[in-house]
Amino acid sequence: MLRLVMVAAALVWWAVSAEAAVRTKVVEYKQGDTVLEGYLAWDDARIGKRPGVLVVHEWTGLGPYAKKRAEMLAKLGYVAFAADIYGKGVRPATPAEAAKVAAIYKDDRSLMRARARAGLEVLKGQNQVDPKRLAAIGYCFGGTTVLELARDGADLRGVASFHGGLATPTPGDAVNIKARVLALHGADDPFVKADEVAAFQQELRAAKVDWQFISYANAVHSFTNPDAGNDNSKGAAYNEKADKRSWEAMKLFFSEIFKQGR
Amino acid sequence: MLRLVMVAAALVWWAVSAEAAVRTKVVEYKQGDTVLEGYLAWDDARIGKRPGVLVVHEWTGLGPYAKKRAEMLAKLGYVAFAADIYGKGVRPATPAEAAKVAAIYKDDRSLMRARARAGLEVLKGQNQVDPKRLAAIGYCFGGTTVLELARDGADLRGVASFHGGLATPTPGDAVNIKARVLALHGADDPFVKADEVAAFQQELRAAKVDWQFISYANAVHSFTNPDAGNDNSKGAAYNEKADKRSWEAMKLFFSEIFKQGR
Repeated sequence: MLRLVMVAAALVWWAVSAEAAVRTKVVEYKQGDTVLEGYLAWDDARIGKRPGVLVVHEWTGLGPYAKKRAEMLAKLGYVAFAADIYGKGVRPATPAEAAKVAAIYKDDRSLMRARARAGLEVLKGQNQVDPKRLAAIGYCFGGTTVLELARDGADLRGVASFHGGLATPTPGDAVNIKARVLALHGADDPFVKADEVAAFQQELRAAKVDWQFISYANAVHSFTNPDAGNDNSKGAAYNEKADKRSWEAMKLFFSEIFKQGR
Repeated sequence: MLRLVMVAAALVWWAVSAEAAVRTKVVEYKQGDTVLEGYLAWDDARIGKRPGVLVVHEWTGLGPYAKKRAEMLAKLGYVAFAADIYGKGVRPATPAEAAKVAAIYKDDRSLMRARARAGLEVLKGQNQVDPKRLAAIGYCFGGTTVLELARDGADLRGVASFHGGLATPTPGDAVNIKARVLALHGADDPFVKADEVAAFQQELRAAKVDWQFISYANAVHSFTNPDAGNDNSKGAAYNEKADKRSWEAMKLFFSEIFKQGR
């Protein structure tokens, strides 16, 4: 009985010490002369250096959704930095406005890459981060952005795009990709059609990139975001199954790429 | 110190009791008048009913490869039955012979389905198996077979095809599919080309099946089988990354579909 109590006590201690203590803070930084405002999340209960994950927001800019994902990553034990691509205070409130702001970066991939790199530098500079174990994930516009960051040759172990646009004006840049690529795609996404998927796969194939592509049934654009509603006919909608499955696929991907000395 | 020793002792006990004790046996059974010879694998150290997984062999018939997969599944805690589609002793020794035997079933899907169902019945009848938690996996020819079994309306929670042929003469039968479908595909498979992939996805989409499709870069046919060599130009070759990734994807899939009361 004493034995049992002692084992139980040890277990309780382990459980308590394993409890995550997620901390967050707003980080102001710059790219060129532009002031950007990102959001850092990490687990204060962990010690030692750990992998860092850059999170890039949807076309509405950095808001509660990307911040929540950063916190979820922190709970998993990563240091996550939700970057700001648009600039401090630039948070489009309507789809029309979002489309307009996103277009600036879609039309200027150098700027898109520079903004993403600025965020990556912030992440890399955190003292809890192992600078040799970095990855980037992004949603919709952010998926496009992290793929572009990879094409820029950024020193990443992996990038994961969730329902991101896959096209690029410079597919030849894929030869610069150092990251392993995981694309998580809604099979019914009307904004990222079969021809775009085929071109993307061909781009990566031609450049001998290490990639995986997962298509989820009955999922359209924005399938990971509960705020997208549940009407697939609108072209963007939440799909709980695809959301959970893609998150698990990302976790698996991370467990592979972040292995020491892979 | 005493405390530490006691905790350690408890841990050792847990570790020992968690050790798998995989048992196997050859099982003779019948479909119609044809005698079939399958291979059952389970972990004798586990108690209680657990999920059952049917394994269907490549075009060479039931041999060491599918048996090894059944044992791996047993180690994971499932009861696995490597079915025999061809008949006792029918084990083609050359590719030419394998193609000839496989063609019998590819051309007669009713027979293919009946043979697969016979195997499923054996699995279901094992007293360690929870008959409400069944799945089927298959490799190459076996991938085709388990998809056909699903189209036959078999009571499966899931089917996973590893580099299987995806085409069927009766795509309309997809409306009968009860299983969730996971297709694991080599992105450079010359035997399962882009048009076959597109038709398959369209078949499942039209029937509102719950499916996921994963493409693995630089992988051709037979990418999970070390015996396939490593020369992609031959159209069939082993790819260690894609092998490991697809196995992990299957494990994730099983953890989802076998959850009680999903």
